[in-house]
This record gives sequence, structure tokens and C-alpha cells, in this order.
Amino acid sequence: MTTEPALMTLTDVAKAIADKKLSSVEVTRSCLHRIAQWQPKLNAFMAIESEPALKAAAEADADLAKDGPKGPLHGVPLAHKDMYYEAGHVSTCGSLIRRDFVATTTSTALQRLKDAGAIRLGTLQMAEFAYGPTGHNAHYGAVHNPWKLGYVTGGSSSGSGSAVGARLTFAALGSDTGGSIRMPANFCGVTGLKVTWGRVSRAGAMPLSQSLDTVGPLAQTAEDCALLLGLMAGPDPEDPTASHAPVPDYVGATQASIKGLRIGVPKAFYVDDLDPEVARCLDATIAVLKTEGADIVQVELPDQRQLTAACQLVLAVEAAAFHKRWMIERPQDYGPQVLMRLQNALAVSGVSYLEALRWRGAALAAHVTATSGVDAVIAPVSPLVTPSIGESDVGGAPGAEAVIQRITRFTRPVNYLGLPSLAIPTGFTATGLPVGMQLIGRSFDEATILTIGAAFQRATDFHARVPTLP
Amino acid sequence: MTTEPALMTLTDVAKAIADKKLSSVEVTRSCLHRIAQWQPKLNAFMAIESEPALKAAAEADADLAKDGPKGPLHGVPLAHKDMYYEAGHVSTCGSLIRRDFVATTTSTALQRLKDAGAIRLGTLQMAEFAYGPTGHNAHYGAVHNPWKLGYVTGGSSSGSGSAVGARLTFAALGSDTGGSIRMPANFCGVTGLKVTWGRVSRAGAMPLSQSLDTVGPLAQTAEDCALLLGLMAGPDPEDPTASHAPVPDYVGATQASIKGLRIGVPKAFYVDDLDPEVARCLDATIAVLKTEGADIVQVELPDQRQLTAACQLVLAVEAAAFHKRWMIERPQDYGPQVLMRLQNALAVSGVSYLEALRWRGAALAAHVTATSGVDAVIAPVSPLVTPSIGESDVGGAPGAEAVIQRITRFTRPVNYLGLPSLAIPTGFTATGLPVGMQLIGRSFDEATILTIGAAFQRATDFHARVPTLP
Repeated sequence: MTTEPALMTLTDVAKAIADKKLSSVEVTRSCLHRIAQWQPKLNAFMAIESEPALKAAAEADADLAKDGPKGPLHGVPLAHKDMYYEAGHVSTCGSLIRRDFVATTTSTALQRLKDAGAIRLGTLQMAEFAYGPTGHNAHYGAVHNPWKLGYVTGGSSSGSGSAVGARLTFAALGSDTGGSIRMPANFCGVTGLKVTWGRVSRAGAMPLSQSLDTVGPLAQTAEDCALLLGLMAGPDPEDPTASHAPVPDYVGATQASIKGLRIGVPKAFYVDDLDPEVARCLDATIAVLKTEGADIVQVELPDQRQLTAACQLVLAVEAAAFHKRWMIERPQDYGPQVLMRLQNALAVSGVSYLEALRWRGAALAAHVTATSGVDAVIAPVSPLVTPSIGESDVGGAPGAEAVIQRITRFTRPVNYLGLPSLAIPTGFTATGLPVGMQLIGRSFDEATILTIGAAFQRATDFHARVPTLP
Repeated sequence: MTTEPALMTLTDVAKAIADKKLSSVEVTRSCLHRIAQWQPKLNAFMAIESEPALKAAAEADADLAKDGPKGPLHGVPLAHKDMYYEAGHVSTCGSLIRRDFVATTTSTALQRLKDAGAIRLGTLQMAEFAYGPTGHNAHYGAVHNPWKLGYVTGGSSSGSGSAVGARLTFAALGSDTGGSIRMPANFCGVTGLKVTWGRVSRAGAMPLSQSLDTVGPLAQTAEDCALLLGLMAGPDPEDPTASHAPVPDYVGATQASIKGLRIGVPKAFYVDDLDPEVARCLDATIAVLKTEGADIVQVELPDQRQLTAACQLVLAVEAAAFHKRWMIERPQDYGPQVLMRLQNALAVSGVSYLEALRWRGAALAAHVTATSGVDAVIAPVSPLVTPSIGESDVGGAPGAEAVIQRITRFTRPVNYLGLPSLAIPTGFTATGLPVGMQLIGRSFDEATILTIGAAFQRATDFHARVPTLP
């Protein structure tokens, strides 16, 4: 048993509580202690609910003593991206417009974690309306990277990446529409799972783009992500797009060997124009996977730039349609960057939108053919190492827009195709910033990429390193 | 037994063949005989396949003698709107562009009728790409109304209405995106069923607007429509939008009494500004339904004009997205009216399109609330009696666009809401042109409107009258 409960993995702490080796109150106190230390530096939390959390923890302890565990997350305190509605609680969505929005329903994903016994620790910062890839927020300030203050977390699940990275919460829900889980996971050195479109209900989660939005976890390990996915996945009467596809044993999948699994390395695009430290990390990761028994093969993927373009178009139009009324009534309440993105989308024709959307079937078919010989594809999450908050500030730095375009280069194709992708920490730069890789899987085959991620994490300790308080 | 088999209902002729009272060859000959008489006047058929039909009929007779009936339509010759693909056959879609298009797959709806034993008689005319409400066609000429040559059939299932009306086929598939089954049924004096969106698979049917398209039958009676719907309804792996909702016994429903059923009469819109003969017919129809035991109550519907506007916008954008490539490559091969409609849609923004689409849920909820006290709503299919081909020709008559807008006024709201609606013949004008009414049902409750339609048809003979060869 580690001396600081907050440093444990989700899987371990849940077991320790269920086994009564730790109380929920002890665990919650440990998290609140770290939050008190780190929050002034990171700005990762939107709201810290210390008193209610401790009260819920005490109740969880009492319930455990009386009735045993409610579910696999009994008494585990968690905080999530502030866009998962919970009845009676404020969900700001990182915006001024929804600063005082009190939800009347509870998101299905959140409810399923609650049903498993999780308790509420507070809410996490995010890009305004989840529409920004860096972690900047015009209203609530940028979130800082726990590995180096002044550097970005990645977005839009900025608080989720930062808080899990600093071990302020054992895991956090994020959402990934264009890379918003994988980028914070990448830059903050945690594991993040972008699920197959339709794998997890989006009911009660703030919509950004209905054709692209996915709900998923950030956590320390692939095993923790598997635990959470298993609890959240499956159909939902509140969301007709939530698939009825069977939910396999994801945690079981993380125990399997990768011997004989075939992992594809793209010949181009994902390996071109990488920062040298990202390139080095990709090679090192491939070497580990090879040692663990995977077969590494080259794959030739269809043009990924077209996928990115289609993703951006669909995202922008759907977001603008959702925001239209507020854009007219409250333009002054948006950050300038988000408002500009939304306004640009007003010029896109319906025909262009439908063409971009309709191409998806053909593009996915081409991807499936190109990757038919492999179980997963490995690629960097981002071609560049973590930029500073200054150099990626569109409001300030002249080259910021180019940095942003480059950051999201490798994540959007996956969203357009609807595929699952697991981001895992795979190394550090010379200056101590994390570098991650993504394992892109087959539709509805999260199990295989979780298997690969867990095998890598048994062989390495990048995911287990903890940043020190600056 | 009538002397002319082609005059029988689908239900009766199918039974007569199964009971070996009539051979498929006799029946097919009877249809071909009428087609030979009527086709030069009506232009209802796109292709008449006499020899293959007679060969298939002879095979059906042999199979019946050997193995019994293949299904409920064994040996029944049918022709359909020329947009239901059948592998190896041409589907012109009423266009020049697809004049020589040979399908490589067979539409699910058609396949299910084939599986039930139906044989192929030929293909029926339609508006170019199903995008026109009158029955005009710039390439293949207008289809004529069997009750009065020189008058429109209604569109876009012009050949289906005309051919069933003249008893050249026992039934015909049409498609209804903005009224394209109900209008030809109305003007040609036949029964036409627009199904709930999602009730029948659209796989292998030419798409016009994926959010609005529905596949359904035109036939002599509600009972015949029920028979066909029961064969076609249900899920389909080829069309994810085809619902898994249970398929009830539609034919059984047509035997039920309407005693105590509540039928709503709208207070406005559908009863305003009617041609006097349509108004008279509505009153007479209500009187019959009352006599048959239905409770007639007034209902106040939400603004139907907004539904029409939303329907037109969604339809135009989706159609233009589908046609985009041909609009660029082969503009000269479109009729001017269809090209203009498609081109106009290019100016609509993606945000407007999504707003029009997204309003559907709220609009349907409002409709459900407004009609919660009734089992169905009755309304005219069209506020005006059948116009002539000349006065509704956009290329010729100055007032034609206004006539067209008026024709489609009462059909589009139903498409936007996705509701089922049964058009039934309910009377004739002084000049002998049919006037129909539509029974608008609840989502996935085709059974109730079929019950009402069949009860009306047991009490009246409008559906059974046959036009005389001019």
C-alpha cells in the first residue's frame, strides 16, 4: 500500500475500498489534499466540492459496512469534464453562457458510474463548449500542464488531462470529437480512450457535433480505462445512437498477451514531419511492442488529410447549428476564438455538409481494406512536443493557428471514421514533457487496443510516473 | 368471378391463382390486354415486358401445380415505379441520366414481393428522379389521368397512380417523400399508403431525401395495401433506418370495426380554402365514418405551414447533395424544372439544413400532444380538384408554380413528421374526376388507418369504380 492513496490507480483504490483496507473518507481526503496543493498552479478544477464529497464518502463507508459494495467503484471519488450534466448541479461547459446552467437530468455515462458507486469530487475545466484543442479558455483561464507549468494540457478535456496527470482524481470523463481526449492524455502523460462512435451513450453530455462526439475516460492505465468503459458501454433508451453491440469483458482483455497480434505502422502521414523526440518515441514504443511479441508490419493508409478536412467541416457545421441561437442573442459572451470558428461555419452549404458526411461510409470501407491485415495501427497522437501556453494562444502569438492545426493533425481522421483509439504515455522529452502514442483499433474493438496498451504498460513505467509539485 | 381478371383486387386475384381458379398466365394476359388498350392514351408504363411476364407466369403456374404457392402473391403480375432496382434490369428513375442504368442489386421491398411470388410485368413512369408533384416528365412526357385524358395523375408516382387506376396492374410500389404516393392515389382514384418513416426498408430504392423518403404501395383497396405492407415491413440489414418495431397483422386490422375509434377533423389549415367539391367530399366522408361508428372530434393542430417549409428545405438540400456530381457533369440532361429545384438548394446553408432537421423532434412532440385524443386525423390530400396537364406545366402555364404549391400543401407536413397516412378515394367531381382524403395516423400505427380505410371502403364503392376507355 502506497502512503498516498491519491497516487493509486483506479483499479487498486477501488479494490482497497471494497476490501476495507482504505476508507472512502481517507481516499477522498487524500485527493482533496493534492487538489489543495496543485489547483492554484494548474487551474484544473472548475469546482471543488470538498464538503459534499467528504459527506458522500462517509455515507459510502457506512453503506459499505452495512450492505457491502454498491458496485465496482464503491466510494471512489471522481471529477469529470464539466459537460456531463447531473441533475441539480451546474454544468458550465467551460462557457460564460452556461455559467449558471443547472442540469435537470443526469448524463447516462455519469449515472452509470454513480450506479457503480462513484462519488462526486467536483468538476473539471475544459475548452469553451469543448471547441478548442489546446486547453486555453477565454473565460476561466488556461489549464496548465502538471509536468511543466506554462505549457498546454491539450484540449478540449484540459482539466481531465491535467487532474489525472497530477493525480487529483483517479480518472475523469472527457469527450473526443476531434481529439479532445487523446490530446490531453498525450500532453499530460495519462491514458485516454476515444471509443468507437456509438459505443457509449451521449445522453446528457453537452453536444458539440452529433456525428463525431464520443464519451470516454482518461485514467492512469489502460486497465482503468477498461474498467470504466465496461461500466459505461451499451445501449441507452435516451440515446438512439448508442449501439446494441455486445459489451465484451474489457478488463479481461487487458490481461491478455499481445503475442502474434499484428500492429500496423503507417508508411506516411503519421510518420512524416515528426518532432525528433516524437519520432524517437515512436521507434522505442514499436521496439517494446515487438519485444512483447507483437508482429509489426507496415500499412499504407488512404489519404488522411481529406479525412481531417471532412471532420472539420462536419464538426463546424453541427456545432454552429447547435449554437445558432446563442450566436445571435449572446455573441459577446463567447470567447473570440470560439465565436470565430462558429461564425465561419455559417458560410458552409448544406450540400457540402452532407457530402462531407456521406463520404464517411466510403472512407471507412477504404480504411478497413487498407488495415485488413492488422489488429491495430500505431501512430503518434501529435507530431509535435507540448507547446507552451503562450506560443499556442491564438489571441496572442502570430504562429498559434499553425501550431493548433499541427496539434490536431493526427487525431481528426479517427473521429471522422468513428474508430476507437487509445492514447498511452510512451516516453518523455529531454525537458521532461510526456509523449504519447495512439493505438487505432477496429470499429467496436476497443478490447484489442486495450490489450496492447496494457501489455505496453506492464513492460514500461511511463504511465506510473508522477509529476512533482513545482 | 368477374369476366376480366385484371379488374379484380390484388387480394382476390392472388386467392384465385392460389386456388387454381385462374392461372397466372390468364391473369397476366388480362393485364397485358388492358395495357395494350390503355398505354397509348396514358403513357403509364416505362417498359412493358410482355414476353418475360408471360414466361414467368407459365413458370409460376407450373411451380404452383408442383409445389403449391411460393407465397401470398404467387403468380401475381405487378409493375412498380421505375426506381426500385432489380439486379440485371434497367431502372431509369424517370431520368435521361439513368436511362441505361442496369441495377446490380435488388431493392429489399421488391425482393420481398418477389419472395412472396409476385412476377414482373414491366416498369412504371414517374417524375424525373421522383422530384415533381404533378406527373409531368420533361423526357418521357406527362402521364395522363385514366379518368380524364389531359389531366394530371399527380406525382411523383404518376405511372403507379395511373396504372392502378386504369387496372393495368393490381398494385404498384410508389415512394412518398413529399406526397408522391398520396397525390397520385388522390387524383387517380386509388388507395395509397404512405408509411411511417422507417417502417419499410429503402435499400435499393432510388434515394431522393434520406430523412423523408418512404416506400409504400398504391392499390385498389386498403386491404390490398395491408397485404403488401405486411410483406414488406420490418428490419433489413441493408438499411439501418428500417425499424425493428413489431409488424402487426395489417390484413387482420382491415377486418376490424371502427366503432368507438376517434377521428380528428382539423379546425384550420386542412379545411380552409378548399375547392367546393373537395369540401363537400370531406363532409360526406365524415358522415360515412360517423355512420360506421367512429367518433368525430375537432382537433387543433400546430402550424402546418412551418412543417411544409422545413420539409421542403430538408428535401431540397438532401436531393441536391445526392445529385451534385450529375449537376456539375450533366446539367443538360436534367429537365429544366428539376435542375432549377436542385440548383436552388445549393444556396442553403448547412446550419439552416440542420436546424430544419433538428426541429423535427419538437414538432412531432407538439403534434402528438395535439392529437393525443384521437386515433387518426382526416384531411383532404389536396385542396384542389385535379388540374389539367396544361395548367400545371411549369414550362408553359404562368400560374403553374402556384398550382403546384397548392397541390402539395396538405401532404408535406406528414412527411416532415414521419407519420403514416392512407389516401383513399372518397368521391368524384361533377366532371367525373376522383377526390380523395387522407387518414393521418400515429407513428408506426398503420394498422388503425388501414382499419378506418377498409371500413369506409366496405360502406362505399368509390374505390371499386373503373374508368372507361376513352
